[in-house]
Amino acid sequence: MPKGGGSPLTALDALFNPASVAVVGASRDPTKPGGLILRYLLDSTARVYPVHPSVSEIHGVRCFPSVRALPEPVDLAVIATPVDATLRVLQECVWRGVRVAILVAGGFGETGEEGRRREEEVVRIARMGGMRLLGPNTLGVLVPRSGVDTLFIVREKAPRPGPGPIAFISQSGAIAVTRMTAAAWEGIGFHSFVGLGNRADIQENELLAYLATQPAVGSAALYLESFADGAGFLDLAREVSGRLPVCLVKAGRSPGGARAASLHTGSLAGSDRVVGGVLRQAGVYRAYDDEELIDVAWALACAPLPRGDRVAVVVSAGGHGVMLADFLEAKEHAVGLRLANLSEATQERLRREILPFASVANPIDLTASATIPMYERVLSIIEEEPGVDAVLCSVQVEPPGLDERLVDVLTAYARSTTKPVVAASVGGEASLQVRRALNRAGVPAYPSLWRAARALGALVERARRLHPERFGARAP
Amino acid sequence: MPKGGGSPLTALDALFNPASVAVVGASRDPTKPGGLILRYLLDSTARVYPVHPSVSEIHGVRCFPSVRALPEPVDLAVIATPVDATLRVLQECVWRGVRVAILVAGGFGETGEEGRRREEEVVRIARMGGMRLLGPNTLGVLVPRSGVDTLFIVREKAPRPGPGPIAFISQSGAIAVTRMTAAAWEGIGFHSFVGLGNRADIQENELLAYLATQPAVGSAALYLESFADGAGFLDLAREVSGRLPVCLVKAGRSPGGARAASLHTGSLAGSDRVVGGVLRQAGVYRAYDDEELIDVAWALACAPLPRGDRVAVVVSAGGHGVMLADFLEAKEHAVGLRLANLSEATQERLRREILPFASVANPIDLTASATIPMYERVLSIIEEEPGVDAVLCSVQVEPPGLDERLVDVLTAYARSTTKPVVAASVGGEASLQVRRALNRAGVPAYPSLWRAARALGALVERARRLHPERFGARAP
Repeated sequence: MPKGGGSPLTALDALFNPASVAVVGASRDPTKPGGLILRYLLDSTARVYPVHPSVSEIHGVRCFPSVRALPEPVDLAVIATPVDATLRVLQECVWRGVRVAILVAGGFGETGEEGRRREEEVVRIARMGGMRLLGPNTLGVLVPRSGVDTLFIVREKAPRPGPGPIAFISQSGAIAVTRMTAAAWEGIGFHSFVGLGNRADIQENELLAYLATQPAVGSAALYLESFADGAGFLDLAREVSGRLPVCLVKAGRSPGGARAASLHTGSLAGSDRVVGGVLRQAGVYRAYDDEELIDVAWALACAPLPRGDRVAVVVSAGGHGVMLADFLEAKEHAVGLRLANLSEATQERLRREILPFASVANPIDLTASATIPMYERVLSIIEEEPGVDAVLCSVQVEPPGLDERLVDVLTAYARSTTKPVVAASVGGEASLQVRRALNRAGVPAYPSLWRAARALGALVERARRLHPERFGARAP
Repeated sequence: MPKGGGSPLTALDALFNPASVAVVGASRDPTKPGGLILRYLLDSTARVYPVHPSVSEIHGVRCFPSVRALPEPVDLAVIATPVDATLRVLQECVWRGVRVAILVAGGFGETGEEGRRREEEVVRIARMGGMRLLGPNTLGVLVPRSGVDTLFIVREKAPRPGPGPIAFISQSGAIAVTRMTAAAWEGIGFHSFVGLGNRADIQENELLAYLATQPAVGSAALYLESFADGAGFLDLAREVSGRLPVCLVKAGRSPGGARAASLHTGSLAGSDRVVGGVLRQAGVYRAYDDEELIDVAWALACAPLPRGDRVAVVVSAGGHGVMLADFLEAKEHAVGLRLANLSEATQERLRREILPFASVANPIDLTASATIPMYERVLSIIEEEPGVDAVLCSVQVEPPGLDERLVDVLTAYARSTTKPVVAASVGGEASLQVRRALNRAGVPAYPSLWRAARALGALVERARRLHPERFGARAP
């Protein structure tokens, strides 16, 4: 059996950044997975080889009758054939030196005894041939930067996120796609998505270890219904979470959820109670909600860590200031941060230069008379106040003196400071535009005050764990 | 002093449903409050009288030089003059028989001793003249059904919600406007908004008592930083919450939030600890988050109360089923409901008629092969299952067999059943369209799985309080 051997890439390099991709089961029919996968991969930077037994070209691209007939040993093969053809195709992939195969089809371990045997056989073939497998029963991968996109869901229904820092690993394709679509809509970018599917070979630990070596990855977000190797995950998290923020939803926390999980991916959900405490010790941010998962992964990927927990809150509306103060400091439903005490000198400057009419205590309320230059001045005064570790800013354009240029002011400030800046903009179309612009500029922005406060809370939690000395007596 | 007396309306009828409105301080300049207020009121069903000392018409509408010169004793006067002119204008309003005046200007109790004295004087004038006051320092009112809209924020920045069942009373104009804009974007409708401002005269208790008598009001949402009369509020809530769901954010829960609240509206935030327990006893849903406030008020206004806490979960994606099951049943971060146990007969029907390939245990996972007729059949089978009290449905259009026509199926089912139906649709543009259509049809729909589960939890909480007998041993 020739082993190819042309590619110097590791298997995971080949998965995330393939120079060549074969689409087995390629189709002209865009309603079929093999049709969509081919169409979208043709937009990527990889060389793409459709494999079809009887067709000579699709979309003007030359087809090959079999994997054996491919002109080079490709890095990645996306196998979109029906389950029955899988074993034969895999054997050909091994023969032709494919580095990684993505098995799209279901009908394996998640369906019962016969499927389980088939899945074992598939793994055996790959292992013997030195080829790696993603799936089966998976949407595959999405790498926005290179355009590698094996998601067989039309982009009209699920627009893909742009390039960015979040690496998303998910045991559920649907959770990942719906959350990435929601995040894309907000202007949030992703390094990559990998759908684990049945996780017959490649699993989350190996992926996480790889992603932790990639400079373009700013945070890892994981949706798991079970751990492939829980002890290994904790060891790995302990090792990498200092340099790579790791956020996790461990679903299947309830009996009904665990039962659904076992039917869904054929895996047993682990005991939730064991999981809870040790995750935090290993430096993992545990989210309970898929929305929270991406919210927090985004802030951790974008913003610098604060040197303390003293927050300056800037708003153009009293009520937003009250709510944000509560979300920082209240006993319940709060994130355990502190409103910064502004020095007399800072308050005096704020009063003299900007705000004879409004509140210069923290929260700083610029009122509905706020203007863009006022925001600019406030941010520059805050920057010089040593008692402030982070800035939480409500960015609304309803006041007559404010508009979307406020985004530029906040972005310029965020780029100039070492403090984290987190924004909220609540509303409809206008707020969505504000959030998109901020997120695209790397300033994490949220559609609710609570979500912004929670994201800032995650930044402080991480800072407190990595740099307990900065938090003095308040360290855990 | 002639007292007018032409109108048979009560003062609050005059506020919510005025037949005639004077805009004092009307302006041609759309950047001025008096300009915007006039422009928007001209779209309402009320007769509108601009008052301007020297201009004979604005936008083709005849102006009157003073309130005294008005041709009839108007129901409502919106006073958008500078604070200095207020006393004189109010005296004229009393003289001319105005029922309610909205005082837009700030510069009263929220600014210190002199403002407080001015506010007392204003109240004295109104009381002596038998006229009621809203404000000062308020955005006023919005009544989508009649088009009464005194909000001096351009609609391009803050599109107004359409007519609907939520009555929103807020001590913060900005919290209300940003939340209503967000809700409008989702297709959620409002009966009314009233901005309390400094609450010198009309306060939340009187408004709530009035709203509880209005058949078009489906729920009341209140944002308060303090209670005008806390004991009175609790008595009233106890009295009305059986027929009108009452949801409340009591902000200023933290020292910093309370301080900000006192600067914001000049009122002292009450002790949060006293507030917590008794609110629930009085039947009030206490939200901690402005987003949660409207989420829950919307579900309570739209959906019938369930007869129990057994929920059928219908999804087209395994991961959504796992997460929803967790949100219902898990020990932490869950709403304390139960997945319904589907009878053998129901499971057999589901298997035979729809789902040979997928999960017929609850959550019912139609998988990515889901079609619209499959949803239709599942809902009709669930409807006949006596062990189901409520339906929680993930409505995604990513599967190739699903599109926005799924909205019609769910809407038709929701209209045909006595069970509450709550939906989630997570994603971008396509999901937004789904949610808008569902919300406009009165099926509460949320952009996150957690928010949908939480809203259903509020429905069960209310059912449990009003009908403890239905919940047997599980009643509180």
